[in-house]
Amino acid sequence: MKKEVVAGIDIGGTNTIFGLVDRSGNILVRNKITTDQSPDPGIFIKKLSDEIKEMLSREADVNLKGVGIGAPNGNYHKGTIELAPNLAWKGIVPFAGLMEKEMGKPVVLTNDATAAAVGEMLFGAARDMKDFIILTLGTGLGSGFVVNGEVVYGHTGFAGEYGHVIMLPGGRECGCGRKGCLETYVSATGIVRTAKIFLEERKQASLLREINPAHIDSKMIAETASEGDELSLDVFDYTAEILALAIVNAVVVTSPEAIFLFGGLVKAGKLLLDPLQKHAEALVQPVFRDSFKILPSAIPETNGAVLGAAALAWKELK
Amino acid sequence: MKKEVVAGIDIGGTNTIFGLVDRSGNILVRNKITTDQSPDPGIFIKKLSDEIKEMLSREADVNLKGVGIGAPNGNYHKGTIELAPNLAWKGIVPFAGLMEKEMGKPVVLTNDATAAAVGEMLFGAARDMKDFIILTLGTGLGSGFVVNGEVVYGHTGFAGEYGHVIMLPGGRECGCGRKGCLETYVSATGIVRTAKIFLEERKQASLLREINPAHIDSKMIAETASEGDELSLDVFDYTAEILALAIVNAVVVTSPEAIFLFGGLVKAGKLLLDPLQKHAEALVQPVFRDSFKILPSAIPETNGAVLGAAALAWKELK
Repeated sequence: MKKEVVAGIDIGGTNTIFGLVDRSGNILVRNKITTDQSPDPGIFIKKLSDEIKEMLSREADVNLKGVGIGAPNGNYHKGTIELAPNLAWKGIVPFAGLMEKEMGKPVVLTNDATAAAVGEMLFGAARDMKDFIILTLGTGLGSGFVVNGEVVYGHTGFAGEYGHVIMLPGGRECGCGRKGCLETYVSATGIVRTAKIFLEERKQASLLREINPAHIDSKMIAETASEGDELSLDVFDYTAEILALAIVNAVVVTSPEAIFLFGGLVKAGKLLLDPLQKHAEALVQPVFRDSFKILPSAIPETNGAVLGAAALAWKELK
Repeated sequence: MKKEVVAGIDIGGTNTIFGLVDRSGNILVRNKITTDQSPDPGIFIKKLSDEIKEMLSREADVNLKGVGIGAPNGNYHKGTIELAPNLAWKGIVPFAGLMEKEMGKPVVLTNDATAAAVGEMLFGAARDMKDFIILTLGTGLGSGFVVNGEVVYGHTGFAGEYGHVIMLPGGRECGCGRKGCLETYVSATGIVRTAKIFLEERKQASLLREINPAHIDSKMIAETASEGDELSLDVFDYTAEILALAIVNAVVVTSPEAIFLFGGLVKAGKLLLDPLQKHAEALVQPVFRDSFKILPSAIPETNGAVLGAAALAWKELK
């Protein structure tokens, strides 16, 4: 009997990664192509479909059941990619529909953070959980909310934009045009902004002063913090405090069993998680004390996006 | 054939209101008793059950299908009332279970704001909506979140405590032991706190200065505001701005089709709703612009609690 697989596709601003994934979450094969920058999405969809078909033809005895796609500004209800600032296609692209025509199989699409939530649910640490939240801490902050075993898509299909919850009215300018959004503080870019502000405002010595400010990134801040640099540790504490507030504020809404953290910033490990735990315990509403855990995602970061997209396909095929 | 009814019960700190409600949301009969202040909940449960049985015996040709209860700190998953500060029963009371023994019918219990959400869904303006939020603006602020047609109860059964989302870290002291919770600003008591602060901080003339500060209530502020009193109008604007921020922050999580406002403070009508609309439009994330409506609840306030509890019973019986 042929092995059943789905194709998981993660569309990013630069690269598109895709792979064939079985029902247990094993990636049989994966590849990547450059995300096409021509304005006509049809060109890219044809190329991507051809690549997947070729991948399938090289794998002996597999049977493609469907396709799952994670994409920025992906709309689950409509299968569209809408006004994505980092992609070349303008307006509203009916991506899933076009892909379905090429592939002749069911195609389901959502945003990347939502796909990560489904990945955690099917293949990660949320397998037995009905209520959880995943926060993806990358360049920005994405989120997926799962309630009663189902992903929250909302009326628009865009629910779970927790990176754009306003934490500090009138605070830092955000790419969305507003001020004080969570992702301007808690993300790889947010933590760098904090470090630069601290370096400017404070007199304190810091290993970060030896680096050209234009070159500081979140990994460097984690390195100097782990060497005991006080300013860098303060940067993590500040980031953790805002994230903790965001978490306890999400807890009063959906009362999750766990909040999973995924993405580059989580590699800082205890540097982020220890102060996060401390602040969350101090800030949580008494009725929810000890009712939830804050955990790193169990999905390896390198495979997360493809596994998430594949998980979405498997979930829909059920 | 006998008419099928459920009993809807609203347990409050002072009174318990109950009635028989048919499948269309008609209240056939209603009554109230004092909420018993003796520490043994069994005494009250017996009394309440007897009252309902008597009510049933007086109505010709009705058939009781079940019982729905809205109660402060009601836990849907467990059917318990837990550590309710305004009730005499201490600890965790298995209220639904005890009531079921007395009545011999299925009993379902949740907190009062969640019951209001179910009421709106079955008998109010949310009949065709799968995703909406209800905020009950009374002494405190309660909330019910509905996602994909289902109430959000969460892992603990206490989800939807939006009155305790922290809006201003380090802000006003809240009864929950923390600071800056939404309900310390947006509720009948919150708006009075704002008025008193404005009266103290500002030199401005105001009709409210003619009232003994200890006697100011939210209704008076609405009256003076509707007479054009500037300070009172500012109080509404300030309240509306914080509520608008809370609403746009909830919108990024669940992307509702509507946010319904229920309770005493909503009687202020345009005094609250006009500035609320203005601030929400200014604060909303662009992707959600025009995606949701802010509306007064379609359930009359006097019947809301009983109808909500009854709706909960009808929903579970389906």
